[in-house]
Amino acid sequence: MVIIGDGALRELGAKILEAAGTPGEEAVWVSDCLVLSNLKGVDSHGVQQIPGYVKAIEDGFLKPGAKATLLEESAATSFYDGNWGYGYSIAREVMAATVKKAREAGAAFSGIRNVHHIGRVGKWAELALDDDMIGIASQPGGVYIAPWGGVERKLPIAPIAFAAPTGKYSPIVVDMSLGPIAGGRTAILAQRGMRVPLGWYIDDDGETHDDPKIFNEGKGAQLPLGQPGLGYKGMALSMMINILAGPLLGHVATHAQAFRRCGVFLGAIDPEAFTPLETFKEGMDALISDMKSSRLADGFDEITVPGEPEWRTMMRRLKEGIYLDDEIYGRILDTAERLGVSTMGYEGNPGKESVVHPSYALKDMYR
Amino acid sequence: MVIIGDGALRELGAKILEAAGTPGEEAVWVSDCLVLSNLKGVDSHGVQQIPGYVKAIEDGFLKPGAKATLLEESAATSFYDGNWGYGYSIAREVMAATVKKAREAGAAFSGIRNVHHIGRVGKWAELALDDDMIGIASQPGGVYIAPWGGVERKLPIAPIAFAAPTGKYSPIVVDMSLGPIAGGRTAILAQRGMRVPLGWYIDDDGETHDDPKIFNEGKGAQLPLGQPGLGYKGMALSMMINILAGPLLGHVATHAQAFRRCGVFLGAIDPEAFTPLETFKEGMDALISDMKSSRLADGFDEITVPGEPEWRTMMRRLKEGIYLDDEIYGRILDTAERLGVSTMGYEGNPGKESVVHPSYALKDMYR
Repeated sequence: MVIIGDGALRELGAKILEAAGTPGEEAVWVSDCLVLSNLKGVDSHGVQQIPGYVKAIEDGFLKPGAKATLLEESAATSFYDGNWGYGYSIAREVMAATVKKAREAGAAFSGIRNVHHIGRVGKWAELALDDDMIGIASQPGGVYIAPWGGVERKLPIAPIAFAAPTGKYSPIVVDMSLGPIAGGRTAILAQRGMRVPLGWYIDDDGETHDDPKIFNEGKGAQLPLGQPGLGYKGMALSMMINILAGPLLGHVATHAQAFRRCGVFLGAIDPEAFTPLETFKEGMDALISDMKSSRLADGFDEITVPGEPEWRTMMRRLKEGIYLDDEIYGRILDTAERLGVSTMGYEGNPGKESVVHPSYALKDMYR
Repeated sequence: MVIIGDGALRELGAKILEAAGTPGEEAVWVSDCLVLSNLKGVDSHGVQQIPGYVKAIEDGFLKPGAKATLLEESAATSFYDGNWGYGYSIAREVMAATVKKAREAGAAFSGIRNVHHIGRVGKWAELALDDDMIGIASQPGGVYIAPWGGVERKLPIAPIAFAAPTGKYSPIVVDMSLGPIAGGRTAILAQRGMRVPLGWYIDDDGETHDDPKIFNEGKGAQLPLGQPGLGYKGMALSMMINILAGPLLGHVATHAQAFRRCGVFLGAIDPEAFTPLETFKEGMDALISDMKSSRLADGFDEITVPGEPEWRTMMRRLKEGIYLDDEIYGRILDTAERLGVSTMGYEGNPGKESVVHPSYALKDMYR
């Protein structure tokens, strides 16, 4: 483990991306977004993405500096070509336009095709919070999930984000895949030799197993979200996202190249189109209080609501620094050196933390 | 078991609802909607609801003949008071207005508060298909689910529907709760003495069990959707729906009276605001073909996509008739007789079918 402060990590990330051909301001923005993911504990979508982005630039799949082109527009919808730019830049621009449209029309939805990775989808939904709106964001992600009754990887894990403003509580931020586990997180678990409950992964014969390494080597698939007998629900959820970000945007996002062709779907809803903002926020607080008032299950100290564990992790990591696996950080330093970026002063300190994400704390795993 | 033709069942349902004070045309429409649910195999939302609706009219919670009042409107949103009318009538009217708005604005979302049960949510999403649009519908439903880490009923099962037009295949119709199982379906399983896999229900102490009867007696709760360790995802999904149909519409839908106060959320997206309709439909067909091309898991004969099992059940029941439990049908006949509606000719024939829903066939249950 390496511990490094968020400021140093931001700097190093921006330098690497700039050295790979990213305009300076854009490199800072992308690095900020990545480090924010690490701060929130979503390490799968943090700086470990940097070597892959550099490779994508070198391979011509990611075009630094590219801007979105507006293809279609209605009062409540817009559709953009992302021209293979950074998802971070394109999604920021499109989400701002979507929020503006929602202020006029009450709600707005936007699609983007031909765009690179937008990273942690929660980021784009959170942008709507600045305007006291509900934000929605999705990008299909890796094609990892078997359909109900099948054993092959056919469905994307379909990360979805949904953010809603609150009164006295921190905002609700749903930010999760609609499959068992994101690809980047599988990689971390495999790296650390951790096991997961049965029912997440199957092998090539359709038998469930507990070893992320097998999946990480390209074997088998993930089962769709749901208890035994309910995987058809997870399949339907993944298909819904895949329809909105696939056929709706003029392409099919089911095949193995989905990551390169994937669409993005962003939305904003203005609560004031329905109800006064203060009433909405009071309702949100009442809903959260009601969750937290539940009698607890064995092994739990409290009920947390979506976004709360990530917010706490961020508060802690802002103080303590960010924990990265040696191998993962090593690949980042290697990339820097290959591009002629000095890594002096960015070595970090040795650390021991092995927590992955609050949701994956082992005590919670088997319920 | 009783087997009865869909035509006779429609007639009887309409007569009962009319005798309870429902205007003639509305009684026919509500009965048609209920019988369509039975035809599609969604018996939980079929004619077994009739005795409850009659009681709701008698208790003053359901006002036959009531129309919706428009409260707020923007280019892409509208918000109605349902004045405690039949959800079936109010949702029909509002969904038609929503589709019309989506034709202009590209997408539209509508909320309804103070409205009775809208029944099978799939019905309202399907209405958008007539106009080649994507339809969305939700109503929070029974508060049955424990939050992640809790053991009390706090979250609604959050039925959600999503319908999308296709080319050569029957339309995709997602129509499911975001919890393990709908209340009406629990009642049917309890009635038939059936068991379910572990992980769906917990008792008052938080221990999982397999007996729908315990839950049906008001004890314990359902666990949120998700494999072991992933219930926080199901909690988040339920909260999202609960926010859109609760605080957004000016009330909190978390407490035990949710059914009476519940809001409805309807949406329509016009694919042509993004991509030519034919391209969209080709993409949908390609997506479905891709699902069906998966190598099969043991015990499965084929991959079905959302809406397909229900469509097949409908084709079969249109020929063979609708199967109802003796006790459930007995309660309907009792209600008829109490209201002075002759049940002569509506006795049905004895039958033996014990299949609940294609998704619940036992062979599929333990995967």
